[in-house]
Amino acid sequence: MCALIAQRGIRAERISLFASERGAGTKINVNGTELRVAELSAEAFGAVDYALFSAGGHRSREFVPIAARAGAVAIDNSSIFRLDDDVPLVIPEINPQDARGHRGIIANPNCSTIIMNLVVWPLHRVNPVQRIVVSTYQAASGAGAAAMDELRSQTADVLAGRPATPRVFPYQIAFNLFAHDSPVGRDGYNAEERKMIDETRKIFHEPQLAVSATCVRVPVMRAHSESVNVTFARPISPGEVRDILHSAPGVEVIDDVDAGRFPMPLDAAGRDNCLVGRIRADLSQPEGRGIDMFVCGDQLRKGAALNALQILELVSAR
Amino acid sequence: MCALIAQRGIRAERISLFASERGAGTKINVNGTELRVAELSAEAFGAVDYALFSAGGHRSREFVPIAARAGAVAIDNSSIFRLDDDVPLVIPEINPQDARGHRGIIANPNCSTIIMNLVVWPLHRVNPVQRIVVSTYQAASGAGAAAMDELRSQTADVLAGRPATPRVFPYQIAFNLFAHDSPVGRDGYNAEERKMIDETRKIFHEPQLAVSATCVRVPVMRAHSESVNVTFARPISPGEVRDILHSAPGVEVIDDVDAGRFPMPLDAAGRDNCLVGRIRADLSQPEGRGIDMFVCGDQLRKGAALNALQILELVSAR
Repeated sequence: MCALIAQRGIRAERISLFASERGAGTKINVNGTELRVAELSAEAFGAVDYALFSAGGHRSREFVPIAARAGAVAIDNSSIFRLDDDVPLVIPEINPQDARGHRGIIANPNCSTIIMNLVVWPLHRVNPVQRIVVSTYQAASGAGAAAMDELRSQTADVLAGRPATPRVFPYQIAFNLFAHDSPVGRDGYNAEERKMIDETRKIFHEPQLAVSATCVRVPVMRAHSESVNVTFARPISPGEVRDILHSAPGVEVIDDVDAGRFPMPLDAAGRDNCLVGRIRADLSQPEGRGIDMFVCGDQLRKGAALNALQILELVSAR
Repeated sequence: MCALIAQRGIRAERISLFASERGAGTKINVNGTELRVAELSAEAFGAVDYALFSAGGHRSREFVPIAARAGAVAIDNSSIFRLDDDVPLVIPEINPQDARGHRGIIANPNCSTIIMNLVVWPLHRVNPVQRIVVSTYQAASGAGAAAMDELRSQTADVLAGRPATPRVFPYQIAFNLFAHDSPVGRDGYNAEERKMIDETRKIFHEPQLAVSATCVRVPVMRAHSESVNVTFARPISPGEVRDILHSAPGVEVIDDVDAGRFPMPLDAAGRDNCLVGRIRADLSQPEGRGIDMFVCGDQLRKGAALNALQILELVSAR
């Protein structure tokens, strides 16, 4: 977040950093200036215009409403308020107009949702989407810095023939994969899958949109990947999809069959754009209404910090 | 293959091992007996009843017909003959009757195909499958022992901050993933995906079966995983699916929502059975005809050597 703040030209003297008691006192370099992290309290928001929250659901539930009441616009990375009727859920490339109606809180969508929606939305505008079947390949970064450390240290343990001890993740992540470790509901879908379904419906303003999602954690450090199968209302060709996505904001088409170049998480990591490729007519839909795609996006950038900053720029520009 | 031969009680004195000039002379321990590998030649098959081929398409193309002409039954692991009309493509749990019609050659299906078919077929028998959308998470083992070594050594390089040099795979496999590295056809599908489509149709005797596949290589050592979305002719419940799969041969249901236990490649590695879980009603098909599942199977066992040996047992039992 701090790195992106610097990149996007927000001056350090306009930034105040807050953390819990444990994190307070740390110094963080923002664009060449050392900023001291203060302890977050209910009184913190007096002079704050825009409050970016990225400290987990627990903290957001307590402090986001306080920030909003104090007159700040809270842009929240947690999932707590995303489905609230009076909280806009915004991807600036898709539904910037929703941000206008905010009452002090704007929610930043789930990372897998953002990455998928960036490529599906421009197509939906041209040819309405009838159904999405998505399977994800989610990086360790989605579970935080400690999870990335665990992937590194566990992998070293396995290579050295030592036992792999899961601490952050419930199971061994080194050279293994498993169903996304969020709670599973009575319908068998885990929370991450429900987010992809429910948030896509809200962002698209299509409350009945048919989406099925399977979310899987893989031993990749950073950047999520998604295999996306889309059924459209009318026939659509891979060439048409490629043309639409070539001019879609935040999207980069990497789809070179001759060179064998397609999106990879390693290439998406550290980049603002989401990469899309393997665009092909779904052979299981002979009427030509199906498209298969593979998308990779940096879960920490467009999937989180970048989208939050874009929301900030959107509302502060008014 | 040799380990499974021993496990399944085939006596070492009944086995002859062959390899190319380079591999000839090696000694391999089969069930406590050291066997010397001889060089493969056109004259090798005189005393051979059953010839198991697992040395790549090039070798199979040359020697499988020679073996068959010499009176042996060739059971071939390569993809060369799989779609030939006069070559049965057999998964013993599914279409054992097809093996009967062989003319000296029986093909062993692609590993991803076998793993998917084992769980889809028992359902198809009860409620015809109308469409399959599958995304795979394929282990390094599928590209051979050198690929597994590359995953290990590249991972060690990345952890040590050294550059990762791809040799076996076209791209870095350590902490990364990419589209399956088989040739991509004019329709945009790669060869692995076409195998899953074409071979499933042949094994199921459903030449029009609608299948879309996306095949992805992931940094897992051994055992493939697959996210499988199936549309049936009639409504079907997750409970019904679980009941059918509980009694399906070669399949083990691991689907404990309370304990968070679902199939993982680490658990499937070294096991004969394929693991299936995350069985749930596909929310994108409100009429109740969709099921989502997650399957893991040892690509070297049921995906290759085990299935070949089961074919051998099937035809030799007559």
